Amino acid sequence: MKLIRFGDAGKEKPGICLDGKFYDLSAFTRDYDEQFFAEGGLEKLQEILSAQQGRLPEIPADTRIGAPFGRPSKIVCIGLNYADHARETNAIPPAEPVIFMKSTTALCGPYDKVMIPRDSEKTDWEVELAIVIGKKTSYVEESDAMEYVAGFCLHNDVSERAFQLERGGTWDKGKGCDTFAPMGPYLVTRDEITDIDNLRLWLTVNGQKMQDGNTSNLIFNIPFLVAYTSRFMTLLPGDIISTGTPAGVGLGMNPQVYLKPGDVMELGIDGLGTSRQEVVAFSK
Amino acid sequence: MKLIRFGDAGKEKPGICLDGKFYDLSAFTRDYDEQFFAEGGLEKLQEILSAQQGRLPEIPADTRIGAPFGRPSKIVCIGLNYADHARETNAIPPAEPVIFMKSTTALCGPYDKVMIPRDSEKTDWEVELAIVIGKKTSYVEESDAMEYVAGFCLHNDVSERAFQLERGGTWDKGKGCDTFAPMGPYLVTRDEITDIDNLRLWLTVNGQKMQDGNTSNLIFNIPFLVAYTSRFMTLLPGDIISTGTPAGVGLGMNPQVYLKPGDVMELGIDGLGTSRQEVVAFSK
Repeated sequence: MKLIRFGDAGKEKPGICLDGKFYDLSAFTRDYDEQFFAEGGLEKLQEILSAQQGRLPEIPADTRIGAPFGRPSKIVCIGLNYADHARETNAIPPAEPVIFMKSTTALCGPYDKVMIPRDSEKTDWEVELAIVIGKKTSYVEESDAMEYVAGFCLHNDVSERAFQLERGGTWDKGKGCDTFAPMGPYLVTRDEITDIDNLRLWLTVNGQKMQDGNTSNLIFNIPFLVAYTSRFMTLLPGDIISTGTPAGVGLGMNPQVYLKPGDVMELGIDGLGTSRQEVVAFSK
Repeated sequence: MKLIRFGDAGKEKPGICLDGKFYDLSAFTRDYDEQFFAEGGLEKLQEILSAQQGRLPEIPADTRIGAPFGRPSKIVCIGLNYADHARETNAIPPAEPVIFMKSTTALCGPYDKVMIPRDSEKTDWEVELAIVIGKKTSYVEESDAMEYVAGFCLHNDVSERAFQLERGGTWDKGKGCDTFAPMGPYLVTRDEITDIDNLRLWLTVNGQKMQDGNTSNLIFNIPFLVAYTSRFMTLLPGDIISTGTPAGVGLGMNPQVYLKPGDVMELGIDGLGTSRQEVVAFSK
Protein backbone atom coordinates (compact mmCIF):
# COMPACT_ATOMS: atom_id res chain seq x y z
CA MET A 1 0.00 0.00 0.00
CA LYS A 2 0.98 3.61 -0.53
CA LEU A 3 -0.42 5.70 2.32
CA ILE A 4 -0.81 9.44 1.82
CA ARG A 5 -2.20 12.32 3.88
CA PHE A 6 -3.87 15.41 2.46
CA GLY A 7 -5.31 18.75 3.55
CA ASP A 8 -4.06 21.84 5.36
CA ALA A 9 -0.88 21.59 7.44
CA GLY A 10 -1.69 20.31 10.89
CA LYS A 11 -5.15 19.15 9.80
CA GLU A 12 -4.21 16.38 7.37
CA LYS A 13 -6.56 13.48 6.72
CA PRO A 14 -5.58 9.91 5.84
CA GLY A 15 -5.76 8.65 2.27
CA ILE A 16 -4.34 6.11 -0.13
CA CYS A 17 -2.70 6.10 -3.55
CA LEU A 18 -4.12 3.49 -5.93
CA ASP A 19 -2.87 3.27 -9.53
CA GLY A 20 -1.49 6.81 -9.27
CA LYS A 21 -4.77 8.35 -7.99
CA PHE A 22 -5.31 9.66 -4.45
CA TYR A 23 -8.38 8.64 -2.44
CA ASP A 24 -9.85 9.88 0.85
CA LEU A 25 -9.94 7.26 3.63
CA SER A 26 -10.89 9.60 6.48
CA ALA A 27 -14.37 8.05 6.77
CA PHE A 28 -12.82 4.65 7.45
CA THR A 29 -9.66 5.08 9.50
CA ARG A 30 -8.05 7.27 12.14
CA ASP A 31 -5.02 9.36 11.16
CA TYR A 32 -1.74 7.54 10.53
CA ASP A 33 -0.18 8.20 13.92
CA GLU A 34 1.40 6.24 16.75
CA GLN A 35 -1.91 4.73 17.83
CA PHE A 36 -2.81 3.78 14.25
CA PHE A 37 0.30 1.63 13.89
CA ALA A 38 0.09 0.29 17.46
CA GLU A 39 -3.49 -0.91 16.89
CA GLY A 40 -2.66 -2.85 13.74
CA GLY A 41 -3.94 -0.07 11.51
CA LEU A 42 -2.10 -1.34 8.44
CA GLU A 43 -3.86 -4.71 8.58
CA LYS A 44 -7.24 -3.02 9.05
CA LEU A 45 -6.50 -0.75 6.11
CA GLN A 46 -6.12 -3.73 3.81
CA GLU A 47 -9.55 -4.97 4.86
CA ILE A 48 -11.04 -1.52 4.30
CA LEU A 49 -9.55 -1.33 0.82
CA SER A 50 -10.96 -4.74 -0.10
CA ALA A 51 -14.42 -3.85 1.23
CA GLN A 52 -14.57 -0.40 -0.37
CA GLN A 53 -12.97 -1.24 -3.72
CA GLY A 54 -14.14 1.16 -6.43
CA ARG A 55 -16.21 3.23 -4.01
CA LEU A 56 -13.63 5.52 -2.41
CA PRO A 57 -13.93 9.29 -2.98
CA GLU A 58 -11.08 10.68 -5.06
CA ILE A 59 -9.16 13.71 -3.79
CA PRO A 60 -9.17 16.85 -5.99
CA ALA A 61 -5.91 17.21 -7.88
CA ASP A 62 -5.02 20.58 -6.34
CA THR A 63 -5.20 19.34 -2.73
CA ARG A 64 -2.11 19.85 -0.59
CA ILE A 65 -0.30 16.62 0.26
CA GLY A 66 1.18 16.40 3.77
CA ALA A 67 3.76 14.09 5.29
CA PRO A 68 2.32 10.56 5.07
CA PHE A 69 2.13 10.10 8.85
CA GLY A 70 1.31 12.23 11.88
CA ARG A 71 4.02 13.74 14.04
CA PRO A 72 6.12 10.85 15.38
CA SER A 73 7.56 10.65 18.89
CA LYS A 74 11.00 11.06 17.31
CA ILE A 75 12.98 11.33 14.11
CA VAL A 76 16.29 9.53 14.52
CA CYS A 77 18.86 10.14 11.79
CA ILE A 78 21.95 8.19 10.80
CA GLY A 79 24.97 10.23 9.74
CA LEU A 80 27.71 9.40 7.24
CA ASN A 81 26.13 6.11 6.17
CA TYR A 82 27.33 6.20 2.54
CA ALA A 83 31.10 5.92 2.09
CA ASP A 84 31.14 8.44 -0.80
CA HIS A 85 29.33 11.05 1.34
CA ALA A 86 31.69 10.48 4.28
CA ARG A 87 34.62 11.04 1.89
CA GLU A 88 33.22 14.26 0.40
CA THR A 89 32.80 15.77 3.87
CA ASN A 90 36.33 14.70 4.89
CA ALA A 91 34.91 12.36 7.54
CA ILE A 92 36.21 8.87 8.25
CA PRO A 93 33.52 6.26 7.52
CA PRO A 94 32.17 5.41 10.97
CA ALA A 95 32.96 2.13 12.75
CA GLU A 96 29.38 2.04 14.02
CA PRO A 97 26.35 4.16 13.11
CA VAL A 98 26.36 7.87 13.91
CA ILE A 99 23.03 8.79 15.53
CA PHE A 100 21.53 12.24 15.81
CA MET A 101 17.99 13.53 16.25
CA LYS A 102 15.81 15.92 14.31
CA SER A 103 13.12 17.95 16.06
CA THR A 104 9.75 16.60 14.95
CA THR A 105 8.55 20.18 14.43
CA ALA A 106 10.72 20.13 11.27
CA LEU A 107 8.31 17.70 9.59
CA CYS A 108 6.43 18.98 6.53
CA GLY A 109 4.84 17.79 3.31
CA PRO A 110 6.70 16.64 0.19
CA TYR A 111 5.74 19.70 -1.89
CA ASP A 112 5.86 22.31 0.90
CA LYS A 113 8.26 25.23 0.71
CA VAL A 114 11.56 24.88 2.59
CA MET A 115 12.39 28.03 4.55
CA ILE A 116 15.98 29.17 5.03
CA PRO A 117 16.33 29.92 8.77
CA ARG A 118 17.25 33.36 10.07
CA ASP A 119 21.01 34.02 9.94
CA SER A 120 21.57 30.99 7.73
CA GLU A 121 24.14 30.97 4.95
CA LYS A 122 24.63 27.22 4.61
CA THR A 123 21.28 25.50 4.11
CA ASP A 124 21.90 22.21 2.31
CA TRP A 125 20.00 19.21 0.88
CA GLU A 126 20.19 15.47 1.64
CA VAL A 127 18.04 12.86 -0.11
CA GLU A 128 17.46 9.94 2.27
CA LEU A 129 15.47 6.77 2.66
CA ALA A 130 13.48 6.91 5.91
CA ILE A 131 12.27 3.84 7.79
CA VAL A 132 8.84 4.02 9.44
CA ILE A 133 8.64 1.85 12.58
CA GLY A 134 5.47 -0.25 12.91
CA LYS A 135 5.75 -1.67 16.43
CA LYS A 136 7.38 -0.79 19.73
CA THR A 137 11.03 -1.80 19.27
CA SER A 138 13.55 -2.31 22.06
CA TYR A 139 16.69 -4.46 21.90
CA VAL A 140 15.45 -6.26 18.79
CA GLU A 141 17.84 -8.67 17.03
CA GLU A 142 18.95 -7.81 13.51
CA SER A 143 17.40 -11.04 12.22
CA ASP A 144 13.97 -10.00 13.55
CA ALA A 145 14.27 -6.27 12.85
CA MET A 146 12.28 -6.11 9.59
CA GLU A 147 9.17 -7.34 11.40
CA TYR A 148 9.19 -4.03 13.28
CA VAL A 149 9.22 -1.94 10.12
CA ALA A 150 5.91 -0.62 8.74
CA GLY A 151 7.41 0.78 5.57
CA PHE A 152 9.59 3.40 3.94
CA CYS A 153 9.42 7.00 2.87
CA LEU A 154 11.35 9.58 0.85
CA HIS A 155 12.97 12.25 3.07
CA ASN A 156 14.94 15.41 2.37
CA ASP A 157 17.11 15.78 5.52
CA VAL A 158 17.59 19.53 5.06
CA SER A 159 20.59 20.72 7.10
CA GLU A 160 22.16 24.04 8.06
CA ARG A 161 25.88 23.27 7.97
CA ALA A 162 27.10 26.22 10.05
CA PHE A 163 24.49 25.47 12.75
CA GLN A 164 25.40 21.77 12.55
CA LEU A 165 29.19 21.95 12.46
CA GLU A 166 30.43 25.39 13.50
CA ARG A 167 28.24 26.36 16.45
CA GLY A 168 29.48 23.91 19.09
CA GLY A 169 27.90 20.75 20.38
CA THR A 170 26.08 18.12 18.44
CA TRP A 171 24.60 18.10 14.96
CA ASP A 172 21.03 18.47 16.28
CA LYS A 173 21.32 22.27 16.14
CA GLY A 174 21.48 22.27 12.34
CA LYS A 175 18.81 19.68 11.63
CA GLY A 176 15.58 20.68 13.33
CA CYS A 177 14.55 24.06 11.89
CA ASP A 178 10.96 24.37 10.65
CA THR A 179 10.43 22.74 7.19
CA PHE A 180 13.76 20.87 7.43
CA ALA A 181 12.08 17.46 7.10
CA PRO A 182 9.91 17.18 3.98
CA MET A 183 8.69 13.57 3.94
CA GLY A 184 6.62 11.68 1.41
CA PRO A 185 4.64 11.67 -0.82
CA TYR A 186 3.97 8.09 0.34
CA LEU A 187 4.52 5.77 3.21
CA VAL A 188 5.16 2.64 1.12
CA THR A 189 4.53 -0.52 3.11
CA ARG A 190 7.34 -3.03 3.42
CA ASP A 191 5.66 -5.67 1.23
CA GLU A 192 5.80 -3.36 -1.82
CA ILE A 193 9.60 -3.11 -1.86
CA THR A 194 11.22 -6.25 -3.22
CA ASP A 195 14.87 -5.29 -2.68
CA ILE A 196 15.42 -2.50 -0.17
CA ASP A 197 19.17 -2.88 -0.69
CA ASN A 198 19.03 -1.87 -4.34
CA LEU A 199 17.07 1.36 -4.69
CA ARG A 200 18.38 4.32 -6.63
CA LEU A 201 18.03 7.70 -4.89
CA TRP A 202 18.71 11.09 -6.46
CA LEU A 203 18.28 14.81 -5.96
CA THR A 204 18.44 17.79 -8.32
CA VAL A 205 18.66 21.52 -7.60
CA ASN A 206 17.15 23.69 -10.35
CA GLY A 207 17.22 20.65 -12.61
CA GLN A 208 20.92 19.93 -12.10
CA LYS A 209 21.71 16.46 -10.77
CA MET A 210 23.45 16.77 -7.42
CA GLN A 211 23.00 13.37 -5.78
CA ASP A 212 22.68 10.00 -7.52
CA GLY A 213 23.24 7.06 -5.23
CA ASN A 214 21.94 3.59 -4.46
CA THR A 215 20.98 1.95 -1.17
CA SER A 216 23.34 -0.89 -2.15
CA ASN A 217 26.09 1.47 -0.96
CA LEU A 218 24.73 1.91 2.59
CA ILE A 219 27.52 1.19 5.08
CA PHE A 220 24.98 -0.09 7.65
CA ASN A 221 21.86 -1.64 6.17
CA ILE A 222 18.23 -1.27 7.26
CA PRO A 223 17.85 -4.27 9.62
CA PHE A 224 21.13 -3.47 11.31
CA LEU A 225 20.12 0.18 11.83
CA VAL A 226 16.78 -0.77 13.40
CA ALA A 227 18.44 -3.28 15.73
CA TYR A 228 21.30 -0.93 16.58
CA THR A 229 19.14 2.11 17.32
CA SER A 230 16.82 0.03 19.49
CA ARG A 231 19.72 -0.64 21.86
CA PHE A 232 20.01 3.06 22.71
CA MET A 233 16.38 4.16 22.78
CA THR A 234 12.97 2.51 22.52
CA LEU A 235 11.35 3.09 19.14
CA LEU A 236 7.60 3.65 19.14
CA PRO A 237 5.08 2.88 16.38
CA GLY A 238 5.32 5.62 13.76
CA ASP A 239 8.87 6.63 14.73
CA ILE A 240 11.31 7.43 11.93
CA ILE A 241 14.90 6.36 11.29
CA SER A 242 16.40 8.25 8.35
CA THR A 243 19.26 6.21 6.93
CA GLY A 244 21.76 8.77 5.64
CA THR A 245 22.55 10.47 2.37
CA PRO A 246 24.84 9.62 -0.56
CA ALA A 247 27.47 11.98 -2.01
CA GLY A 248 26.55 15.22 -3.72
CA VAL A 249 25.55 17.64 -0.96
CA GLY A 250 26.48 21.31 -1.13
CA LEU A 251 28.89 20.94 1.79
CA GLY A 252 30.96 18.48 -0.25
CA MET A 253 31.46 20.71 -3.30
CA ASN A 254 34.49 22.84 -4.11
CA PRO A 255 33.57 25.62 -3.71
CA GLN A 256 30.65 24.77 -1.44
CA VAL A 257 27.17 25.55 -2.80
CA TYR A 258 24.17 26.33 -0.62
CA LEU A 259 20.48 26.94 -1.15
CA LYS A 260 19.06 30.39 -1.87
CA PRO A 261 15.49 31.64 -2.18
CA GLY A 262 13.92 30.54 -5.45
CA ASP A 263 15.94 27.33 -5.76
CA VAL A 264 13.92 24.20 -6.43
CA MET A 265 14.90 20.79 -5.07
CA GLU A 266 13.49 17.65 -6.67
CA LEU A 267 14.27 14.23 -5.30
CA GLY A 268 13.20 10.63 -5.54
CA ILE A 269 13.82 7.02 -4.58
CA ASP A 270 12.87 3.97 -6.69
CA GLY A 271 9.42 2.82 -5.58
CA LEU A 272 8.96 5.62 -3.01
CA GLY A 273 7.96 8.42 -5.39
CA THR A 274 9.34 11.88 -5.91
CA SER A 275 9.01 15.20 -4.10
CA ARG A 276 9.72 18.84 -4.90
CA GLN A 277 10.44 21.78 -2.61
CA GLU A 278 10.92 25.42 -3.49
CA VAL A 279 13.28 27.32 -1.22
CA VAL A 280 12.05 30.56 0.34
CA ALA A 281 13.69 33.28 2.43
CA PHE A 282 13.20 33.50 6.17
CA SER A 283 10.01 35.13 7.40
CA LYS A 284 8.60 34.88 10.87
CA MET B 1 1.08 25.85 41.74
CA LYS B 2 2.79 22.48 42.05
CA LEU B 3 1.37 20.13 39.43
CA ILE B 4 1.80 16.38 39.92
CA ARG B 5 0.65 13.26 38.07
CA PHE B 6 -0.13 9.94 39.70
CA GLY B 7 -1.05 6.37 38.84
CA ASP B 8 0.44 3.54 36.79
CA ALA B 9 3.12 4.37 34.22
CA GLY B 10 1.50 5.43 30.96
CA LYS B 11 -1.89 5.90 32.65
CA GLU B 12 -1.09 8.84 34.91
CA LYS B 13 -3.81 11.25 36.01
CA PRO B 14 -3.41 14.95 36.78
CA GLY B 15 -3.22 16.20 40.35
CA ILE B 16 -1.94 19.00 42.52
CA CYS B 17 0.22 19.38 45.60
CA LEU B 18 -1.25 21.71 48.25
CA ASP B 19 0.52 22.20 51.58
CA GLY B 20 2.48 18.99 51.03
CA LYS B 21 -0.58 16.83 50.30
CA PHE B 22 -1.47 15.40 46.89
CA TYR B 23 -4.97 15.78 45.43
CA ASP B 24 -6.71 14.24 42.42
CA LEU B 25 -7.77 16.74 39.72
CA SER B 26 -8.72 14.21 37.05
CA ALA B 27 -12.42 15.07 37.36
CA PHE B 28 -11.69 18.70 36.50
CA THR B 29 -8.89 18.85 33.93
CA ARG B 30 -7.36 16.99 31.02
CA ASP B 31 -3.88 15.52 31.43
CA TYR B 32 -0.94 17.94 31.55
CA ASP B 33 0.10 17.54 27.93
CA GLU B 34 0.77 19.73 24.90
CA GLN B 35 -2.90 20.54 24.42
CA PHE B 36 -3.34 21.38 28.11
CA PHE B 37 -0.68 24.07 27.97
CA ALA B 38 -1.75 25.29 24.51
CA GLU B 39 -5.34 25.77 25.72
CA GLY B 40 -4.37 27.90 28.71
CA GLY B 41 -4.71 24.97 31.07
CA LEU B 42 -2.65 26.62 33.81
CA GLU B 43 -5.03 29.58 34.03
CA LYS B 44 -8.06 27.26 34.10
CA LEU B 45 -6.39 25.22 36.83
CA GLN B 46 -6.21 28.25 39.10
CA GLU B 47 -9.94 28.80 38.65
CA ILE B 48 -10.63 25.15 39.41
CA LEU B 49 -8.56 25.29 42.59
CA SER B 50 -10.43 28.38 43.77
CA ALA B 51 -13.81 26.82 43.04
CA GLN B 52 -13.03 23.42 44.59
CA GLN B 53 -11.09 24.61 47.62
CA GLY B 54 -11.31 22.07 50.47
CA ARG B 55 -13.31 19.60 48.38
CA LEU B 56 -10.63 17.83 46.34
CA PRO B 57 -10.11 14.09 46.88
CA GLU B 58 -6.73 13.29 48.44
CA ILE B 59 -4.52 10.68 46.79
CA PRO B 60 -3.57 7.64 48.90
CA ALA B 61 -0.01 7.94 50.20
CA ASP B 62 1.23 4.77 48.49
CA THR B 63 0.20 5.90 44.98
CA ARG B 64 2.93 5.95 42.34
CA ILE B 65 3.93 9.47 41.26
CA GLY B 66 4.72 9.92 37.56
CA ALA B 67 6.51 12.65 35.66
CA PRO B 68 4.48 15.86 36.19
CA PHE B 69 3.56 16.20 32.48
CA GLY B 70 2.66 13.90 29.62
CA ARG B 71 5.23 12.91 26.99
CA PRO B 72 6.46 16.13 25.37
CA SER B 73 7.23 16.54 21.68
CA LYS B 74 10.89 16.83 22.64
CA ILE B 75 13.40 17.00 25.45
CA VAL B 76 16.19 19.40 24.52
CA CYS B 77 19.25 19.35 26.76
CA ILE B 78 22.02 21.87 27.25
CA GLY B 79 25.51 20.46 27.75
CA LEU B 80 28.43 21.84 29.77
CA ASN B 81 26.44 24.77 31.15
CA TYR B 82 28.24 24.97 34.50
CA ALA B 83 31.91 25.97 34.30
CA ASP B 84 32.93 23.57 37.09
CA HIS B 85 31.31 20.63 35.25
CA ALA B 86 32.98 21.59 31.97
CA ARG B 87 36.32 21.63 33.81
CA GLU B 88 35.84 18.24 35.46
CA THR B 89 35.14 16.61 32.09
CA ASN B 90 38.17 18.30 30.51
CA ALA B 91 35.92 20.29 28.19
CA ILE B 92 36.36 23.95 27.32
CA PRO B 93 33.40 26.03 28.55
CA PRO B 94 31.33 26.56 25.41
CA ALA B 95 31.17 29.90 23.57
CA GLU B 96 27.47 29.28 22.92
CA PRO B 97 25.11 26.63 24.31
CA VAL B 98 25.70 22.98 23.44
CA ILE B 99 22.39 21.42 22.40
CA PHE B 100 21.55 17.72 22.31
CA MET B 101 18.31 15.78 22.46
CA LYS B 102 16.98 13.05 24.71
CA SER B 103 14.48 10.50 23.40
CA THR B 104 11.15 11.20 25.08
CA THR B 105 10.78 7.46 25.74
CA ALA B 106 13.39 7.97 28.49
CA LEU B 107 10.87 9.93 30.59
CA CYS B 108 9.83 8.35 33.90
CA GLY B 109 8.61 9.26 37.37
CA PRO B 110 10.73 10.81 40.14
CA TYR B 111 10.73 7.66 42.29
CA ASP B 112 10.87 5.06 39.48
CA LYS B 113 13.78 2.68 39.21
CA VAL B 114 16.58 3.62 36.81
CA MET B 115 17.66 0.65 34.71
CA ILE B 116 21.26 0.23 33.59
CA PRO B 117 21.12 -0.50 29.85
CA ARG B 118 22.45 -3.73 28.35
CA ASP B 119 26.25 -3.65 27.83
CA SER B 120 26.57 -0.51 29.96
CA GLU B 121 29.52 0.03 32.26
CA LYS B 122 29.34 3.81 32.58
CA THR B 123 25.84 4.86 33.67
CA ASP B 124 26.11 8.25 35.40
CA TRP B 125 23.94 10.82 37.18
CA GLU B 126 23.27 14.53 36.46
CA VAL B 127 20.98 16.70 38.59
CA GLU B 128 19.45 19.42 36.39
CA LEU B 129 16.85 22.14 36.41
CA ALA B 130 14.41 21.56 33.53
CA ILE B 131 12.34 24.31 31.92
CA VAL B 132 8.78 23.45 30.87
CA ILE B 133 7.63 25.47 27.86
CA GLY B 134 4.12 26.91 28.08
CA LYS B 135 3.49 28.32 24.60
CA LYS B 136 4.70 27.71 21.06
CA THR B 137 8.11 29.40 20.91
CA SER B 138 9.98 30.36 17.74
CA TYR B 139 12.62 33.09 17.41
CA VAL B 140 11.61 34.64 20.71
CA GLU B 141 13.73 37.49 22.08
CA GLU B 142 15.57 36.94 25.35
CA SER B 143 13.67 39.82 26.95
CA ASP B 144 10.34 38.10 26.19
CA ALA B 145 11.46 34.52 26.78
CA MET B 146 10.13 34.03 30.32
CA GLU B 147 6.57 34.62 29.09
CA TYR B 148 6.92 31.35 27.17
CA VAL B 149 7.89 29.35 30.24
CA ALA B 150 5.18 27.44 32.14
CA GLY B 151 7.43 26.39 34.98
CA PHE B 152 10.31 24.28 36.18
CA CYS B 153 11.02 20.75 37.21
CA LEU B 154 13.74 18.61 38.82
CA HIS B 155 15.43 16.27 36.31
CA ASN B 156 18.06 13.55 36.61
CA ASP B 157 19.69 13.57 33.15
CA VAL B 158 20.96 10.00 33.45
CA SER B 159 23.75 9.39 30.93
CA GLU B 160 25.74 6.41 29.65
CA ARG B 161 29.21 7.88 29.13
CA ALA B 162 30.59 5.19 26.82
CA PHE B 163 27.49 5.38 24.62
CA GLN B 164 27.67 9.19 24.73
CA LEU B 165 31.38 9.75 24.16
CA GLU B 166 33.08 6.59 22.88
CA ARG B 167 30.65 5.16 20.33
CA GLY B 168 30.93 7.75 17.54
CA GLY B 169 28.60 10.53 16.59
CA THR B 170 26.63 12.80 18.85
CA TRP B 171 25.77 12.60 22.54
CA ASP B 172 22.18 11.52 21.82
CA LYS B 173 23.22 7.84 21.87
CA GLY B 174 24.01 7.93 25.57
CA LYS B 175 21.07 9.99 26.77
CA GLY B 176 17.85 8.33 25.62
CA CYS B 177 17.75 4.85 27.18
CA ASP B 178 14.55 3.88 28.98
CA THR B 179 14.30 5.42 32.50
CA PHE B 180 17.12 7.91 31.74
CA ALA B 181 14.89 10.93 32.41
CA PRO B 182 13.27 10.83 35.87
CA MET B 183 11.40 14.12 36.17
CA GLY B 184 9.47 15.62 39.04
CA PRO B 185 7.94 15.30 41.58
CA TYR B 186 6.40 18.66 40.61
CA LEU B 187 5.99 21.01 37.73
CA VAL B 188 6.37 24.22 39.73
CA THR B 189 4.81 27.16 37.94
CA ARG B 190 6.98 30.18 37.21
CA ASP B 191 5.24 32.47 39.69
CA GLU B 192 6.32 30.27 42.62
CA ILE B 193 10.06 30.75 42.03
CA THR B 194 11.25 34.16 43.14
CA ASP B 195 14.86 33.91 41.98
CA ILE B 196 15.51 31.25 39.36
CA ASP B 197 19.15 32.35 39.24
CA ASN B 198 19.82 31.38 42.83
CA LEU B 199 18.62 27.85 43.46
CA ARG B 200 20.79 25.22 45.11
CA LEU B 201 20.78 21.83 43.39
CA TRP B 202 22.37 18.67 44.76
CA LEU B 203 22.58 14.92 44.27
CA THR B 204 23.72 12.08 46.53
CA VAL B 205 24.52 8.45 45.71
CA ASN B 206 23.95 6.08 48.64
CA GLY B 207 23.80 9.09 50.92
CA GLN B 208 27.16 10.51 49.80
CA LYS B 209 27.02 14.04 48.42
CA MET B 210 28.20 14.01 44.80
CA GLN B 211 26.84 17.24 43.34
CA ASP B 212 26.18 20.51 45.15
CA GLY B 213 25.75 23.48 42.85
CA ASN B 214 23.70 26.59 42.36
CA THR B 215 21.91 27.97 39.32
CA SER B 216 23.81 31.22 39.93
CA ASN B 217 26.72 29.42 38.25
CA LEU B 218 24.90 28.68 34.98
CA ILE B 219 27.02 29.88 32.06
CA PHE B 220 23.89 30.61 30.00
CA ASN B 221 20.82 31.54 32.00
CA ILE B 222 17.20 30.49 31.54
CA PRO B 223 15.85 33.32 29.31
CA PHE B 224 18.91 33.12 27.09
CA LEU B 225 18.53 29.35 26.68
CA VAL B 226 14.86 29.61 25.72
CA ALA B 227 15.58 32.36 23.18
CA TYR B 228 18.66 30.59 21.82
CA THR B 229 17.03 27.18 21.41
CA SER B 230 14.01 28.74 19.70
CA ARG B 231 16.29 29.92 16.87
CA PHE B 232 17.14 26.33 15.94
CA MET B 233 13.82 24.55 16.46
CA THR B 234 10.27 25.52 17.31
CA LEU B 235 9.39 24.68 20.90
CA LEU B 236 5.87 23.41 21.54
CA PRO B 237 3.76 23.74 24.70
CA GLY B 238 4.95 21.12 27.17
CA ASP B 239 8.43 20.80 25.61
CA ILE B 240 11.41 20.55 27.95
CA ILE B 241 14.78 22.29 27.99
CA SER B 242 17.09 20.78 30.60
CA THR B 243 19.68 23.33 31.56
CA GLY B 244 22.81 21.32 32.34
CA THR B 245 24.47 19.87 35.42
CA PRO B 246 27.02 21.19 37.91
CA ALA B 247 30.26 19.41 38.86
CA GLY B 248 30.28 16.09 40.65
CA VAL B 249 29.30 13.49 38.07
CA GLY B 250 30.94 10.05 38.00
CA LEU B 251 32.73 10.85 34.75
CA GLY B 252 34.60 13.68 36.44
CA MET B 253 36.01 11.63 39.33
CA ASN B 254 39.47 10.14 39.58
CA PRO B 255 39.06 7.23 39.30
CA GLN B 256 35.69 7.46 37.57
CA VAL B 257 32.71 6.05 39.48
CA TYR B 258 29.59 4.68 37.82
CA LEU B 259 26.23 3.39 38.96
CA LYS B 260 25.65 -0.26 39.87
CA PRO B 261 22.49 -2.17 40.75
CA GLY B 262 21.32 -1.34 44.25
CA ASP B 263 22.71 2.18 44.26
CA VAL B 264 20.26 4.88 45.33
CA MET B 265 20.33 8.39 43.87
CA GLU B 266 18.64 11.23 45.74
CA LEU B 267 18.49 14.71 44.32
CA GLY B 268 16.80 18.04 44.79
CA ILE B 269 16.54 21.67 43.82
CA ASP B 270 15.40 24.51 46.10
CA GLY B 271 11.65 24.95 45.62
CA LEU B 272 11.32 22.10 43.10
CA GLY B 273 11.29 19.20 45.55
CA THR B 274 13.37 16.05 45.78
CA SER B 275 13.40 12.72 43.99
CA ARG B 276 14.91 9.30 44.61
CA GLN B 277 15.79 6.53 42.17
CA GLU B 278 17.09 3.05 42.91
CA VAL B 279 19.36 1.62 40.23
CA VAL B 280 18.53 -1.83 38.85
CA ALA B 281 20.30 -4.20 36.48
CA PHE B 282 19.23 -4.59 32.86
CA SER B 283 16.25 -6.81 32.16
CA LYS B 284 14.26 -6.91 28.98
